[in-house]
This record gives sequence, structure tokens and C-alpha cells, in this order.
Amino acid sequence: MEISTLAKAVLRGERRALARAITLAESGRADHRAQATELLEALGQSGRQAIRIGLSGTPGVGKSTFIESFGLMLIDQGLRVAVLAVDPSSKRTGGSILGDKTRMDHLSRAPEAFIRPSPSQSHLGGVARRTRDAVALCEAAGFDVVLVETVGVGQSETVVADLSDVFLLLLAPAGGDELQGVKRGIMEAADMIVVNKADGDLKATATRTCADYSGALRLLRKRPEDPEGFPKAMTVSALENNGLPGVWDEIMALVDWRRAHGHWDRRRAEQARRWFEEELRETVLARLQTPEARQMGANLGAQVEAGQIAPARAAQTMLAAIWP
Amino acid sequence: MEISTLAKAVLRGERRALARAITLAESGRADHRAQATELLEALGQSGRQAIRIGLSGTPGVGKSTFIESFGLMLIDQGLRVAVLAVDPSSKRTGGSILGDKTRMDHLSRAPEAFIRPSPSQSHLGGVARRTRDAVALCEAAGFDVVLVETVGVGQSETVVADLSDVFLLLLAPAGGDELQGVKRGIMEAADMIVVNKADGDLKATATRTCADYSGALRLLRKRPEDPEGFPKAMTVSALENNGLPGVWDEIMALVDWRRAHGHWDRRRAEQARRWFEEELRETVLARLQTPEARQMGANLGAQVEAGQIAPARAAQTMLAAIWP
Repeated sequence: MEISTLAKAVLRGERRALARAITLAESGRADHRAQATELLEALGQSGRQAIRIGLSGTPGVGKSTFIESFGLMLIDQGLRVAVLAVDPSSKRTGGSILGDKTRMDHLSRAPEAFIRPSPSQSHLGGVARRTRDAVALCEAAGFDVVLVETVGVGQSETVVADLSDVFLLLLAPAGGDELQGVKRGIMEAADMIVVNKADGDLKATATRTCADYSGALRLLRKRPEDPEGFPKAMTVSALENNGLPGVWDEIMALVDWRRAHGHWDRRRAEQARRWFEEELRETVLARLQTPEARQMGANLGAQVEAGQIAPARAAQTMLAAIWP
Repeated sequence: MEISTLAKAVLRGERRALARAITLAESGRADHRAQATELLEALGQSGRQAIRIGLSGTPGVGKSTFIESFGLMLIDQGLRVAVLAVDPSSKRTGGSILGDKTRMDHLSRAPEAFIRPSPSQSHLGGVARRTRDAVALCEAAGFDVVLVETVGVGQSETVVADLSDVFLLLLAPAGGDELQGVKRGIMEAADMIVVNKADGDLKATATRTCADYSGALRLLRKRPEDPEGFPKAMTVSALENNGLPGVWDEIMALVDWRRAHGHWDRRRAEQARRWFEEELRETVLARLQTPEARQMGANLGAQVEAGQIAPARAAQTMLAAIWP
């Protein structure tokens, strides 16, 4: 398919075209990469902006249930919702698509929703780039909200915080000790902490956990991009569908304030610059992976192993040959 | 000073020349870097090999006391000992040298010892490279043992494990819960676990902790580079100077076995190849930091921030200009 044809189909919001475009962006092939860049440029003119919500939470906090309930609520309000997953630890194969969709059974069947699992088995840099592209593609396809979900593993939370407009940390009700388990960097990146499972036996614990985190958030350094009262902690029950409209209202209050005070545009501009810098690093490093470079690296590497040339000298020799 | 003069002084084992050589290798300046490479090449012909011992342990396990007692014991045996620190989180300034030396008061005053603190404030890759160079310089200066110490922070343990012949994990006596606190990757990299503070009230706990870790080590996959009984756990008291000769005997038993069975040379060869690959990545990325590249990056970055060009396109534009 021509890139221009694909671009038009994405702009019409066709989910199959969107899925195809994301596959193109996820590809490791250089020609696909070039096509994806062309596509993103063509789509960049659309000027469409979704609200990008980052969502982090360790397994067991009820992330899928939250996304399903939250997504269906947004659809009820007339919005279109895309869900992307980031899981650099993922060793999933093709089965993951089914896996993610069955996790969010109702949402995945809604025509207003688009669910895309994590690109499998890639280093974090690659995942970051591909997810950024996927977010941009979903925006161009006219989705109003793009939810980017991550399991709290390694650096993936940082990646997600770095591409979202609003970053939610989803937590389960727990004793005070658990508070220590949340990394400080993630606490500082969070715009809202949502304590899920505020239902049944856990309701009282959830309320207490929420109060604990409210206290912890107040101890953090005040950020200029936050209005009074943010970052904040709330309780919800995704299972009983309780509190979700409140979360959305708070997100919108935060978004409106940030838009009115210039923080929205500034954050997006800073993110774009960081993406450029990361993309630059990655494209430079990719040049070390061409067949010619790999061959030369293998030869020099063998000489290094044999002690015939010092590692630093071998690196300089190779660089002088491939990048004079 | 001429590089050849400096090389000769290092080969004579002069500590001031060694300190100067390490400073050269730690420098971020390109001309210093080139000189350091020249120096390392000149010294690489010496064929001297120290026993490189990596030592990791979180603050509070008594690392300084261990290094002081262990180092003095080695000196008593007629050996020369260099101690290098790796701490990528370090925000220390010039005062650190004094800090590290007062931590190891007796050792630092011994003429057979050389103590060098962590290069301050650098990204991990830089620290890794500089530490590798410092190790090579200490070897050329004729030190018999190079101890590379790291606090167990982030990836620094991996760096240290990757440049040592023998990797020791130093632990404090503690309840069984603590066992969970040691990252699996570090456990798997350890050749020996040394439980310190086996003295006074803690003696019984230390013995129990040692037994716990012995059990844990037996559960790990058997590595081809280990003789029967390794990796092993031992108790020592650095404070009371107990058990340290035993640790050294075990290290030497391990070293002798690995030398006799080809593992020593193979490990060093593999390390050299990895250093080459890392050095290559770093020198490539360093090209993005030349004044011209930074200027171009700043211009394109501003255009990206203003939304005039897509991040991926900007990266491709820049790469095409600097690396056609």
C-alpha cells in the first residue's frame, strides 16, 4: 500500500490501517523505518492531539480491570480510546494480542476502542521509540484518549511517564510498609495516585492507603506544572465501577489548567526534543549494526580477544574506517 | 611529560606516575583520551597481570574495614595492593580522595598500597571505561592484586563483575528475609560470598547467614568456570582480623584452578571483547558531543520543539549531515 493511501486511512480512523501503520513503525527493517518516518510526517500535519495518559502499576493491582472500566466509561461519554502496552520484559509471542484482548474483553469489542499489546522482545530504547510512534499514530487516527500502560518493571515507567501528558500510578490497598516499595522517581513523576480495589473487605485499607499516599505526595517538592491540590491520591473500585468518573474529572481539571497556563505545550515541546535526542543516539548506534560494520567488528573483536590489539585502539581503528 | 616517560615511570611502579596516568585516563578531553590510549598501548606490552578482585556490598557491611584488613594482610604476604572505587552515584568532589583514604587509614599509608577513589559525577558508561583503564594501569605498575570496590547501587555491580577475575559479595549478618534483598544477577555473578562481622553478638547470626547463602548458592545453575565447591560462602571478621587468610586461600585456589583449566584466559578475552564493543559505542556517541554536532543538535532541537520538524526526521537530517 502506498504511504499516502495508508495515511489517509489512518486519518479516517480506520483501525486496521492504524494497526498496519503501528506494525510498520515497530519493524526493525530500515526501509520500514523510512516509510514509518514518512507516514508520521504526513500525519503530523493533522494537528490532532489526544490526551495521553500514562498508567503504571505492578501486576496484581487490577490494571486490566481499571483500563476496561475506565475505557468503557470514556466511550460512554462519546470518546474514542486507544490502549497501548509497554512491557520491555515481555517474552510474548503472537499470542499476546489475544492475551491482552481477552484481559479487556468488553473494551476490545467496542468499535470506539483500539487495543495494542507491547511490541515483543526488544531493548528498552526500541520499545520507547516504537511506543512514541504508536502514540502519534493513534492521535492522528483521531483517538481522544491514548492510555499507555506499563508494568512497573525497570525503566519502562520512565519511558511511559516521558510520553504522557498525565501520569497515573495505580496502587493496591496495602499496609504502610508498601509505601516504601514505590520508587521515589515514580512517585515524583506521578500526577495522580489511584488506589484501586476500594471495595469489599479492602475498602477501609484502601482509604487508609490513599491517605498515606496523600501525605507522601504533600512531602514532595512542589512542581510548577501542578495546580493547587496536585499531585493527588484517590480511591476507586474498577470492579464495582466506583470513582472512575471522578478520576476522569480530575484528569480533565489538570489538563485544562496546564493548557491554560502553558505547561501542556511546554511539556510536549520538551518531550519532542528528548525524542529527537534519543532518536539521534539510536540511529547513530544502528550504524554499528550494518553487515559491513558487524563484519569489521567481528574481525577486530577477534584480534582483541587474541590480545593483538588493545580494546580502545580497536574501537578507534573501526571508527576511523566507518566514520572518517 | 612525554607519554613514553610517563609509561616508564608507571612500569617502575611509581605511585605518583600511576596517579597521573589514571587522571589522564579519567579526563573527558579528546587529546587526553588519545594520550591515554597511547599510554595503555605502550604499557600493554608489559604482560603483567594482577589478580583483579571485584568487591560489592551495600553501605554498612563493613567494606572499608574489610579492604583495610584484607589489604594489610596481603601486604604482609609481600604483595602490592591497589584499591579502586566505583560509585556512579557519587557526587563527591576533590574531598573524596581524603575521604577514601581516611576510611582506610593504615592501608593508605603503606607504601605497597595504592588507593584511588571513584571518578566523580559521570554516567555509568564513563565510569566503566575509566575504571577499566585504571585497572590496566595498576597492572602495568606491577600491583599484584587490584581490588575494585563498588557500593551496590544500580548497575555498578555489573560493571565491577565484568572487569574482575574474581567477584566477591560482602554481606552483613542478617535474618533470612535479607536473602531476598540480594539481586539474583549479583548472586549469579558472585564467586564468593563473604559474611562479615562474624564477631561479638553477631557471630551466631553470621554463621546462620553464611549457611543460608551456601544453600542459596547451591541452588544456582552450575557454571563451567567453577571447580567443585564454588561459588562458596564464608564468614569473616574484618574488625577482629579473623578468616581473612582463608578468603585469600580460597581466591587463590579458584584462580589456580581457572588458570589451569583455561577459564582465566577465556574470561579475560571475553572481557576484552566486551570492552572493545562498549568503547566503540561510546566513541561513536562521543561524536554527537563535538561543538559542531552540539550546535546542529541545538538548532534542530529548537525546530523540533517548535513543531516545525518531526523528531525522527530531525535525527535523520542531522545524521545525514554529520555521518554521510
